[in-house]
Amino acid sequence: MSATEALAEYVTHSTLDAIPRDVRDEAKRAIFNYLGCALGGAVEPALNVAIKTLAPFSGNATACVLGRVERFDALHAALLNGIGSHVHEYDDTLPKNYIHPSVPVASALFAYASANPISGRDFVHAFILGFEVESRIGNAVYPAHYAAGWHITSTTGVFGAAAAVGKLLGLSTKQMVWAFGLAATQAAGLREMFGSMAKSFQPGRAAQNGYTAALLGQADFTAGERGLEGPRGFAAVTAAQYDLGKITAGLGKDFERRDNAYKPYACGLVVHPTIDGCSQLHREHHPSPDSIAGVRLRVAPLVLDLCNKSTLKRALESKYSIYHAAAIGLVRGKGGLQEFTDAAVADPELERVRAVTTAVGDETISEDQVHIEVVLRNGQTLSKFVEQSLGNLHRPLSNEQLTEKFVDQAVLALPRSQVDAIVDQCWHVDSLSDAGDLARATVPRATSALRSGRTTH
Amino acid sequence: MSATEALAEYVTHSTLDAIPRDVRDEAKRAIFNYLGCALGGAVEPALNVAIKTLAPFSGNATACVLGRVERFDALHAALLNGIGSHVHEYDDTLPKNYIHPSVPVASALFAYASANPISGRDFVHAFILGFEVESRIGNAVYPAHYAAGWHITSTTGVFGAAAAVGKLLGLSTKQMVWAFGLAATQAAGLREMFGSMAKSFQPGRAAQNGYTAALLGQADFTAGERGLEGPRGFAAVTAAQYDLGKITAGLGKDFERRDNAYKPYACGLVVHPTIDGCSQLHREHHPSPDSIAGVRLRVAPLVLDLCNKSTLKRALESKYSIYHAAAIGLVRGKGGLQEFTDAAVADPELERVRAVTTAVGDETISEDQVHIEVVLRNGQTLSKFVEQSLGNLHRPLSNEQLTEKFVDQAVLALPRSQVDAIVDQCWHVDSLSDAGDLARATVPRATSALRSGRTTH
Repeated sequence: MSATEALAEYVTHSTLDAIPRDVRDEAKRAIFNYLGCALGGAVEPALNVAIKTLAPFSGNATACVLGRVERFDALHAALLNGIGSHVHEYDDTLPKNYIHPSVPVASALFAYASANPISGRDFVHAFILGFEVESRIGNAVYPAHYAAGWHITSTTGVFGAAAAVGKLLGLSTKQMVWAFGLAATQAAGLREMFGSMAKSFQPGRAAQNGYTAALLGQADFTAGERGLEGPRGFAAVTAAQYDLGKITAGLGKDFERRDNAYKPYACGLVVHPTIDGCSQLHREHHPSPDSIAGVRLRVAPLVLDLCNKSTLKRALESKYSIYHAAAIGLVRGKGGLQEFTDAAVADPELERVRAVTTAVGDETISEDQVHIEVVLRNGQTLSKFVEQSLGNLHRPLSNEQLTEKFVDQAVLALPRSQVDAIVDQCWHVDSLSDAGDLARATVPRATSALRSGRTTH
Repeated sequence: MSATEALAEYVTHSTLDAIPRDVRDEAKRAIFNYLGCALGGAVEPALNVAIKTLAPFSGNATACVLGRVERFDALHAALLNGIGSHVHEYDDTLPKNYIHPSVPVASALFAYASANPISGRDFVHAFILGFEVESRIGNAVYPAHYAAGWHITSTTGVFGAAAAVGKLLGLSTKQMVWAFGLAATQAAGLREMFGSMAKSFQPGRAAQNGYTAALLGQADFTAGERGLEGPRGFAAVTAAQYDLGKITAGLGKDFERRDNAYKPYACGLVVHPTIDGCSQLHREHHPSPDSIAGVRLRVAPLVLDLCNKSTLKRALESKYSIYHAAAIGLVRGKGGLQEFTDAAVADPELERVRAVTTAVGDETISEDQVHIEVVLRNGQTLSKFVEQSLGNLHRPLSNEQLTEKFVDQAVLALPRSQVDAIVDQCWHVDSLSDAGDLARATVPRATSALRSGRTTH
């Protein structure tokens, strides 16, 4: 049996009861982390522009866009959910292939669920399957595919979205094969777009295109049946080297889902250990900014190559400053979206701590580590060595930490009381009788009168 | 100046008056040939399925689908026009890079024109520019890109559609650069899909995605600004070897438009010389099928490798039969869509001529040639040597032949009187005050009461 057919057959025959409990629990954590990111990005300019531009092209407005009052057809909602949830690059990561796996799949699923009745169990099941499909395809073509310049999140995400939505639509194995063919022939997205709005457009388009592939497959719109392994199929065309065996090895027994990581901080990974260690000192000692006479960091040499900005002018620069990382950890004890704004850059307390922080490269320190010494005005020295940074696979975020991250983002779009209700509902997504309720719960309440009608532009 | 920027600047600054008359005339021939193909495919199953599946997702139904009563938003109309016009693979070809250039560009333009007022002059101008953009990008990455397995019509067509629609939307050069970035990051389509409905979906999706790229560019949705030449841009990622100089060499002076070819017959190229020569004998001698005692063909050896089917069961097989090619030429004097149907396969007159036809391979005969001997029952022998087959660049179809091809296809979707009116209007597309009138003229009249309203499904 070909890789395409084997994968299609697995998806169409899978039952949730055959999936281990820990995998289902981890899926809920990923959905939770995803939804927080979607709310954190719900008021970003990239999403505003896309919504305004595409509104006249929306079909029957049966679907919600997460965290927004505007309604769209479900295919557009999938795209827009994808832009919002990826725009801060705060979503999850599979360390072994650099896929940000939840955005393409969950963006399509939340759009589908908001427009079609579907149980929480089926929602979680489809999410696990979509995740598995994209990650296994990613494993097969990584690293050559990513090194060539493909944005692997979108190129593999289109298959994940097709699998997830196709499962909910009840596709036959043959139809799922066609859906995978239609996904293969829409797989796109270049790393050249990084740093622009097109970056978050890509996984959104993957969600929308995968959803479309599933709809067409269901309608017997035929496609090549060797979309993954054919001589002119996805793997051969987009990767100089690939191993199709990774698509099917241990399918149904080994779950990629277990290897997913969540970012604790809204910035590049190399400054994460410093924020982590400084946040620990903040919690343990509560040093006031005034009391800090100096901060001495020993970091991996790469950190200074990438993040040696000490004088900051714009918000974006703060994401690339080891000095800012130390300051937000010590002063605020966290590194959420609000620690990387223009207001945070101008915060006098953060500015003061940045000014007394120094950093030296040390080849004995790994990129996941940091050694911190904080000298207080009273002569006391606080020390901390971070051996493995929070958020990596060996020190995953706890559910409480994921909740803190969620709230920190969601309050940018919604009032706190509404956020708390969503948090509670999202942790129980698998027991909802209608998963669409969770999507609808994210619509800003002040304008809820608009919810039943189509928006006009 | 980068290739992306140079191409964007050329498109945004181009004037129609600076484009030579012969190029503008050839553009009209391409538009004419395109529209005939769109009508020939307007009742095909692939289009029916796509229309039915996507109807609920259409936005404001401001646009026509060529040859159909259903109305859609312009983005969906671009997709659907693309499916219909490519489904028979009877559209035009650039011999030097194998792009079928008109479908992605004209599919987007007809959709745009049917929803927005635009003069025939501007329509033709935008068509020429889109054509130039996709063909030059194709030249830069051909042959490595095509050999790798990319369906070059769709991967380059998305740029052509973005250029054409972007020109009509009045994008600035910077916005056009973003539109090209958004096109680059949506460029997709695999040759693995050939032989399925997904084949015609690809250039349709390119039309729709390029149109979307132009809309987003106009709204200042940013993208990477080196979409073509960046280290992780379109050329480097999709072609092992490429020459970006071909994108800009002679831009505004040399026109790709001049090298476009139109298929005279609705089948694979290698049997074209036989249909051509036999059609000439039909016109010159009018031999009745009963009078033909034998047909002896000498053909390039490849022809027998590919097209040696003498016993035919299904319509599709007739496209790969050198015997059928001889029969339709001698009996009907043409090789349009209706010569490759189940009815044609079962036609007793064609069957009789197929049965008395023999073919031998001859290495002195090129794939563009054939030697034909027809022995009549009265002992007379008719001979014909075709040195260059009709439809290649040295023997282009005349406007009369293009008209015959158009009518032959269009009558499948529309009554003859309506077809004749469209033919007349299309040859004067550049003088229309509203090019959308041409799109609207293709809507089947019997149901014209539906034209002003949105269809429901």
